[in-house]
Amino acid sequence: MRIDILTVMPEALESPLNCSILQRAQDKGLVEFHIHNLRDWSTRKHRKVDDYPFSGDAGMVMQIEPVYRCIEQLKSERNYDDVIFTSPDGDILDQPMANALSLAENLIILCGHYKGVDFRIREHLVTREISIGNYVLTGGELPAAVIADAVVRLIPGAIGDEQSALSDSFQDNLLEAPIYTRPAEFNGWKVPDVLLSGNFAKIEQWKMEQALKRTRELRPELLK
Amino acid sequence: MRIDILTVMPEALESPLNCSILQRAQDKGLVEFHIHNLRDWSTRKHRKVDDYPFSGDAGMVMQIEPVYRCIEQLKSERNYDDVIFTSPDGDILDQPMANALSLAENLIILCGHYKGVDFRIREHLVTREISIGNYVLTGGELPAAVIADAVVRLIPGAIGDEQSALSDSFQDNLLEAPIYTRPAEFNGWKVPDVLLSGNFAKIEQWKMEQALKRTRELRPELLK
Repeated sequence: MRIDILTVMPEALESPLNCSILQRAQDKGLVEFHIHNLRDWSTRKHRKVDDYPFSGDAGMVMQIEPVYRCIEQLKSERNYDDVIFTSPDGDILDQPMANALSLAENLIILCGHYKGVDFRIREHLVTREISIGNYVLTGGELPAAVIADAVVRLIPGAIGDEQSALSDSFQDNLLEAPIYTRPAEFNGWKVPDVLLSGNFAKIEQWKMEQALKRTRELRPELLK
Repeated sequence: MRIDILTVMPEALESPLNCSILQRAQDKGLVEFHIHNLRDWSTRKHRKVDDYPFSGDAGMVMQIEPVYRCIEQLKSERNYDDVIFTSPDGDILDQPMANALSLAENLIILCGHYKGVDFRIREHLVTREISIGNYVLTGGELPAAVIADAVVRLIPGAIGDEQSALSDSFQDNLLEAPIYTRPAEFNGWKVPDVLLSGNFAKIEQWKMEQALKRTRELRPELLK
């Protein structure tokens, strides 16, 4: 998979994309990240990419021209499955969406800009708007990193331990059962007896009961 | 505000916390971030902080001891409003929650670990579990950065332009109207005439209509 990320703040993406599983996935050749600084596509003085909104509101708005030029160049080089725009009013990212995106070959992610981007970018250049949640952030860089992380870890081979990804929360529409490790007692707080019993049939049954119980309490909508 | 972040991957937080508005908020003395590497609180060989789960599942689980020691030390130095754990099954972050958290004085955020943390941490040390959405990520570092970003930008003075934060999506339970900047025509795509009219009463009316229309189409639940 190849992911091109278009941003005015490339430095914000440095550490999230180069840690842990995302780093390993790159090392293994499973994913390539290409970060494009939109200022490099500006023809204005001081490489400016934003301007005042026509509406008279406060804040600056990202202009269409640099975005258009960068996307056209990329599209002339290969086909893209989607041009994603990170926006608080996009479709909300969830696990089925991450699963679907993990099958893509080439993705462009345009990072939303603090106050907004010229709406014509969203009408004419973007194929898909994704929100990571109903809250406002400084820019689209963190959402782009979140989408990349949720998607890339699903590519076969990205996680060393496939079994572990399969038992993640949401993959079977159940939250995970509580999980414990050593010591069996700490500060008077004990691990449930069943987990120390060595009876694996019983442990499996307990895990399923706990997963159902937690899902019913915390995410009843997943059981519908 | 002071935010202490406990993690096994401090390097993942570097660039998100030191960019743009979060950097400016630190420079202005509005927020202090303190990153704690949980390995520094391990007493095991190679500063290990995880171990196999009792359940026999794949993956490693974060142990309670280093987390306990680090949190106890911090709590002995000051009072904390909340000890937040980032978890896919926590309460889902939204704008009202971000608003409430922005009033806190001291927060601890414990970053979730790939496979999970010993459940006793969640039972006994954590006061609040927050999810940034219904999807699985590599670790809790991106969610911690998302929470920090959503919260800190609401601290008065963090955004240069207060007016701009007030007109953000969600703050009045409406999505924003489409926004446009120059040029008025690009590639045959035009800015709506009303925005070029200079009639500010009409523009305000158009914006309100568009905000309602977009909210009704994209986030009808916000209007209830």
